[in-house]
Amino acid sequence: MFHSATKLVVITEHFVSRQVCKIIEEGGGKGYTMVPAGGKGSHHLHPTMEKATVIEGFDNIKFEVIMQDRKLAEAIAERVLNECFDDYPGVMYLEDVQVCRPERF
Amino acid sequence: MFHSATKLVVITEHFVSRQVCKIIEEGGGKGYTMVPAGGKGSHHLHPTMEKATVIEGFDNIKFEVIMQDRKLAEAIAERVLNECFDDYPGVMYLEDVQVCRPERF
Amino acid sequence: MFHSATKLVVITEHFVSRQVCKIIEEGGGKGYTMVPAGGKGSHHLHPTMEKATVIEGFDNIKFEVIMQDRKLAEAIAERVLNECFDDYPGVMYLEDVQVCRPERF
Repeated sequence: MFHSATKLVVITEHFVSRQVCKIIEEGGGKGYTMVPAGGKGSHHLHPTMEKATVIEGFDNIKFEVIMQDRKLAEAIAERVLNECFDDYPGVMYLEDVQVCRPERF
Repeated sequence: MFHSATKLVVITEHFVSRQVCKIIEEGGGKGYTMVPAGGKGSHHLHPTMEKATVIEGFDNIKFEVIMQDRKLAEAIAERVLNECFDDYPGVMYLEDVQVCRPERF
Repeated sequence: MFHSATKLVVITEHFVSRQVCKIIEEGGGKGYTMVPAGGKGSHHLHPTMEKATVIEGFDNIKFEVIMQDRKLAEAIAERVLNECFDDYPGVMYLEDVQVCRPERF
């Protein structure tokens, strides 16, 4: 019932979210999930803040894209890195997942 | 300190969230986490929208259930697929995780 | 382009979020992501509630920390377990991920 697939996670600012959506769609992503996020860190958002708190809000977006073909997920990741992360902070990683109905991913 | 376990992720509409909770509890899930989510895609929510944006809000829910016994997680997944995803769009996948205190999952 | 790393996930109450941030930073975490969360369960938050619903809100926080060195992630997890989870409910697990630019984690 379950088939191996790759999940690409991109966490970045709202400002670049439309560009990330465009890259996902052009790269063959059949869908994506978005979750509100906040954060702190050298590689992350809000590099100048002392501490990220709830009061400062969840003003970033965490994208999740699951793809059957890992090579396509990696190609999307490379475009996001080159086209979005030079100018804006962000976090990106891949995870192995198992999906039902693999033809939908 | 860490023990292998399985995380089941279900992303679906608010409308069916009570049914998903019921299936998780009946299937032996000892707890679950919920996160607000939005999305777009053929396999996903909002199939008719041009593009999902923040303005449209996070009107879906992402459930996470961690279980020591992978077979129980798969059985919950099968019930969600059969009882919820025929009528409503949704995404579902499994991930391998490592937990402390495995008796709690 | 991708390198193995470890993601530590901690889900807990707002009340202890500053302490979790402190432990992450003292333990060498270079950054973290936060997502609003709710939940239910024996090992989880809201143990006395009949059912967690959206109306009750997402009044917990899910932290994600990615670290190149798994041993450091495990040490943070151990401190969170000992210093935060004795008094407050919470969920914690590790996942294997693959990151670009590993020097940032």
